[in-house]
Amino acid sequence: MNAKQPFVANQAQVDEAAIAPLPNSRKIYVEGSRPDIQVPMREISQSDTPTGMGGEKNPPIYVYDCSGPYTDPTAKIDIRAGLPALRQQWIEERGDTEVLNDLTSDFGRERAGDKALDELRFPGLHRKPRRAKAGTNVTQMHYARQGIITPEMEYIAIRENMQREKYLADLKNSGPQGDRLAKLLGRQHPGQAYGAAIPPVITPEFVRDEIARGRAIIPNNINHPESEPMIIGRNFLVKINANIGNSALGSSISEEVDKMTWSIRWGGDTVMDLSTGKNIHETREWIIRNSPVPIGTVPIYQALEKVDGKAEDLTWELFRDTLIEQAEQGVDYFTIHAGVLLRYIPMTANRMTGIVSRGGSIMAKWCLAHHKESFLYTHFEEICEIMKAYDVAFSLGDGLRPGSIYDANDDAQLGELKTLGELTQIAWKHDVQVMIEGPGHVPMQLIKENMDLQLEWCDEAPFYTLGPLTTDIAPGYDHITSGIGAAMIGWYGTAMLCYVTPKEHLGLPDKDDVKEGIITYKLAAHAADLAKGHPGAQIRDNALSKARYEFRWDDQFNLGLDPDKAREFHDETLPKESAKVAHFCSMCGPHFCSMKITQDVRDYAAKQGIAETEALEKGMEEKAIEFVKTGAEVYRKV
Amino acid sequence: MNAKQPFVANQAQVDEAAIAPLPNSRKIYVEGSRPDIQVPMREISQSDTPTGMGGEKNPPIYVYDCSGPYTDPTAKIDIRAGLPALRQQWIEERGDTEVLNDLTSDFGRERAGDKALDELRFPGLHRKPRRAKAGTNVTQMHYARQGIITPEMEYIAIRENMQREKYLADLKNSGPQGDRLAKLLGRQHPGQAYGAAIPPVITPEFVRDEIARGRAIIPNNINHPESEPMIIGRNFLVKINANIGNSALGSSISEEVDKMTWSIRWGGDTVMDLSTGKNIHETREWIIRNSPVPIGTVPIYQALEKVDGKAEDLTWELFRDTLIEQAEQGVDYFTIHAGVLLRYIPMTANRMTGIVSRGGSIMAKWCLAHHKESFLYTHFEEICEIMKAYDVAFSLGDGLRPGSIYDANDDAQLGELKTLGELTQIAWKHDVQVMIEGPGHVPMQLIKENMDLQLEWCDEAPFYTLGPLTTDIAPGYDHITSGIGAAMIGWYGTAMLCYVTPKEHLGLPDKDDVKEGIITYKLAAHAADLAKGHPGAQIRDNALSKARYEFRWDDQFNLGLDPDKAREFHDETLPKESAKVAHFCSMCGPHFCSMKITQDVRDYAAKQGIAETEALEKGMEEKAIEFVKTGAEVYRKV
Repeated sequence: MNAKQPFVANQAQVDEAAIAPLPNSRKIYVEGSRPDIQVPMREISQSDTPTGMGGEKNPPIYVYDCSGPYTDPTAKIDIRAGLPALRQQWIEERGDTEVLNDLTSDFGRERAGDKALDELRFPGLHRKPRRAKAGTNVTQMHYARQGIITPEMEYIAIRENMQREKYLADLKNSGPQGDRLAKLLGRQHPGQAYGAAIPPVITPEFVRDEIARGRAIIPNNINHPESEPMIIGRNFLVKINANIGNSALGSSISEEVDKMTWSIRWGGDTVMDLSTGKNIHETREWIIRNSPVPIGTVPIYQALEKVDGKAEDLTWELFRDTLIEQAEQGVDYFTIHAGVLLRYIPMTANRMTGIVSRGGSIMAKWCLAHHKESFLYTHFEEICEIMKAYDVAFSLGDGLRPGSIYDANDDAQLGELKTLGELTQIAWKHDVQVMIEGPGHVPMQLIKENMDLQLEWCDEAPFYTLGPLTTDIAPGYDHITSGIGAAMIGWYGTAMLCYVTPKEHLGLPDKDDVKEGIITYKLAAHAADLAKGHPGAQIRDNALSKARYEFRWDDQFNLGLDPDKAREFHDETLPKESAKVAHFCSMCGPHFCSMKITQDVRDYAAKQGIAETEALEKGMEEKAIEFVKTGAEVYRKV
Repeated sequence: MNAKQPFVANQAQVDEAAIAPLPNSRKIYVEGSRPDIQVPMREISQSDTPTGMGGEKNPPIYVYDCSGPYTDPTAKIDIRAGLPALRQQWIEERGDTEVLNDLTSDFGRERAGDKALDELRFPGLHRKPRRAKAGTNVTQMHYARQGIITPEMEYIAIRENMQREKYLADLKNSGPQGDRLAKLLGRQHPGQAYGAAIPPVITPEFVRDEIARGRAIIPNNINHPESEPMIIGRNFLVKINANIGNSALGSSISEEVDKMTWSIRWGGDTVMDLSTGKNIHETREWIIRNSPVPIGTVPIYQALEKVDGKAEDLTWELFRDTLIEQAEQGVDYFTIHAGVLLRYIPMTANRMTGIVSRGGSIMAKWCLAHHKESFLYTHFEEICEIMKAYDVAFSLGDGLRPGSIYDANDDAQLGELKTLGELTQIAWKHDVQVMIEGPGHVPMQLIKENMDLQLEWCDEAPFYTLGPLTTDIAPGYDHITSGIGAAMIGWYGTAMLCYVTPKEHLGLPDKDDVKEGIITYKLAAHAADLAKGHPGAQIRDNALSKARYEFRWDDQFNLGLDPDKAREFHDETLPKESAKVAHFCSMCGPHFCSMKITQDVRDYAAKQGIAETEALEKGMEEKAIEFVKTGAEVYRKV
């Protein structure tokens, strides 16, 4: 590690790289049924088709945007103040929560009272924590099951739809050219959804129904009102999560905040703070207050720090206090490894790589040391009580996930999965939202079994998988070994994919690694959306391909997931600005280009006095008839 | 482009980066039934398991090695002299070829006589070209169909098997520890092979039978005796190809030779030289003479250069001369776009991206200009005559492959595929080896259809696909969008995967891009081998995972596809040499580590006076009974 400047709160600044708008992009907001429902999207404008190729006016393309206010030049960004509390009013008007005078957790109060921490403490929170009133339940699932459509649900419906219908209808109605473009951009291959039931239009009522059914979750703690609602479920767009967090060995608060803003810029739908080093509490506060996406944690990590790494010293009381501490900061979902049961632990002894989940191994150690089931399992209903008082969602951890191809789909893993299904039913009894974590390392032919068993045993609660890695032989490239598995399991029905960076198994990811992991998973998730036939998913592919075909280089870059890298790669071979409008590319050079020839083919046909398709067909038919008449000898000797 | 030194033949040197042995690796040769059958493999030695974890002696691991003599420190490498002609004797003793006094092709003779080219000409070829005697057929398929097992076939059988049986048997017989290790390393999940019929052991007779059946090919031109035989077929290990080649815009002969040696170092099974710029003939000579892997080309590219890029000026005579020119240099397979028929061309007019195959668009333009079927189609049997005189294999090109998700699996693409199946039958009638090229851009749910139709229509001739890319929205990451599709189609039955680099669609790949593409495709091919259940494929995964679990960092790096990058990534976070033997990693730090805890779990069990598994099970059983006896209340209130 390089020597670092100590982090000082009053000098904290946003990472400049995270706030520039993406090229040719503009943040727009779509208003819902009330003026405070303002759903963000990114509008990417395009240049016109070159005159020689028809001169079409290409419409802007709208894409799902996770970056929050950061990429909005009109937003005032001050990470010392945090983001505006956009959901505050919705939470308040439900009238089922109360503002607490002080933090409930002992640890939270202790940290708050520690003057030595003032220098690095987040200074911008002037709000008291909030909790459900006694006897009430403030989860989105609870509302959904009472038939209530919350503003969060409406927000999500707008966000998932991207106004696709209106967009295509407006385009179609804008004239013959628009009609052609609407057909071209809107065309999509039928999907194979393996039992998912994605409607053509996501309505607020559909969102409510999916939440009530437990088939989707909206992770949004009432103490994280800064978050923009998003949904995780197999009938919605596939989401991705980015892990950040310091360890005992490295990185500071500012680095972690930077990783968060960087993650969401490139498309992280949620961020997990997996910090295990110093000042976990304060780091988390900075992240949450500045995060427009849901934040997840693994509370046992912090609990373990509190007992100096001695798993056997963990207690339910300590863990409970940690849950409340984090719930009152605003963590949106907790990974809880409650499925690590005594009877599964011996099943791991013959594994190649034992227990690789950190949470799983902590709980296994605890179980063995105490010879009893873990407090996560024995106190599960009490945990549910805490979850529903803040609307924290469960991410039921797969503590026994396989850490190698060898260990894939073994009894320990599948036994735990079955238990997670049982725990899902208990959480649902409390109207607490649940998703289920999944593997890990799995060869391709065994991936679908994971998905099928999860759907069956966990009754379609959203699956949230790490990869899976499809081979173990490529350390340094595990974003790719796992991106393959991620795309496939996303297609089969996984709702959220936890990214893997190139540093997996080797070291702590830096910002470049975070971006590489995000983009890899974003493209895997999108490949899954396409394969499932998610309505409208292909619009962006179609638009980018059209730009590529028409040599609109800048549009091709800008419509991609990473315009900066695409531009940089292009410029390495053809750096001149004029090359961006050139009708050739660096692969074949100016002399000959297959794209150009296709155009020549069309032009050639046009020159024969007939226009495009039908003409070409006619011309060819005539020639074909002629060809047949003249003998049609395919293998004439010359 | 940076300014370059002009290439001068007598100063050409091998890329130093290509000749260092890989870490802890040693080139070994396994002798066949005759002393001149020496099959190379890479032996990766491992360190012992740490004493505290059992102190096992870990056996070396053997991996398939494409790098030829370059990584053999005992080999004398001089790229001005080229590689030794290891197959020369086998070719000569068959007695069915004759040495020509001069090159047959006009163009080849013209270049050979041009004194101005002396400065950049490959100086090391002192052999005359060779051709089948009149009336004979020198293809491996021809021999196979006559029941002859060639030395090439035996070589391949040894190469594909990697002596797996002997390796595991020797290990098993080396004592109780060896027995345990043989079981551990040899264990593999059952595959799902979708109709492939991979035998437990590849025999020379099996190789012969697959070649005779047309289900596999051995691309090895009699004028490329430097090549180490390898096989492409669905019942063998999945192979990968790397494309290199200069264009009008960049790169020199030495850069292309460097890319070739670099490609094979990292695992390229074949290399295609797609040069379109200057001195194509001389560049190719340098590449072939120094290549231990088969070299493929697209002869129409060079033919087009000869008519200054005017597709309509191409003639059969010119093309024929080009085929012979390249066949006498030793090109092992030719991409021939003979399936681009007149009737398919109009089907591309309504595409999003028209015709993106360069060869396809050249032929389409020619067809339209002349209003007749291409000379590739009309002279197909004459092409077969040339192919069988040198044993050049067909790679029947997919000139109408889709260039976008939009265009996937359309009538033009599938029509051409059907024609390629018909051409396969014609080639087989001549005992000429054939593989079939495939797409392109295909969303995941449509990939299998490609494979299934190819198997059916082309009667199981090996499929050789580019990707496919599973989405269009990630320029700069198309090695990954396509790596996903490649792994899947490899699983479904594709025999060779043509790599895609991160620069795809954007620019010319440099050496870093070539490596990134190779490793991505190597891991995709391996993931496919695992999924198909290829015997022994999992040994390397198992060994690497064991090393990972035992914190044998160096072994973990060395067993991976890219030891250099793995080591570099690790050192970024934990640079000290001592960290390579540390029992923790940078993710969790020295304080707590899940791998370590698993060990603690085992140790804990051992301390109870009982050893490992059964003990753990017993202990747990006792405790579980106790747990049940004491009430087994899972949700006791605290």
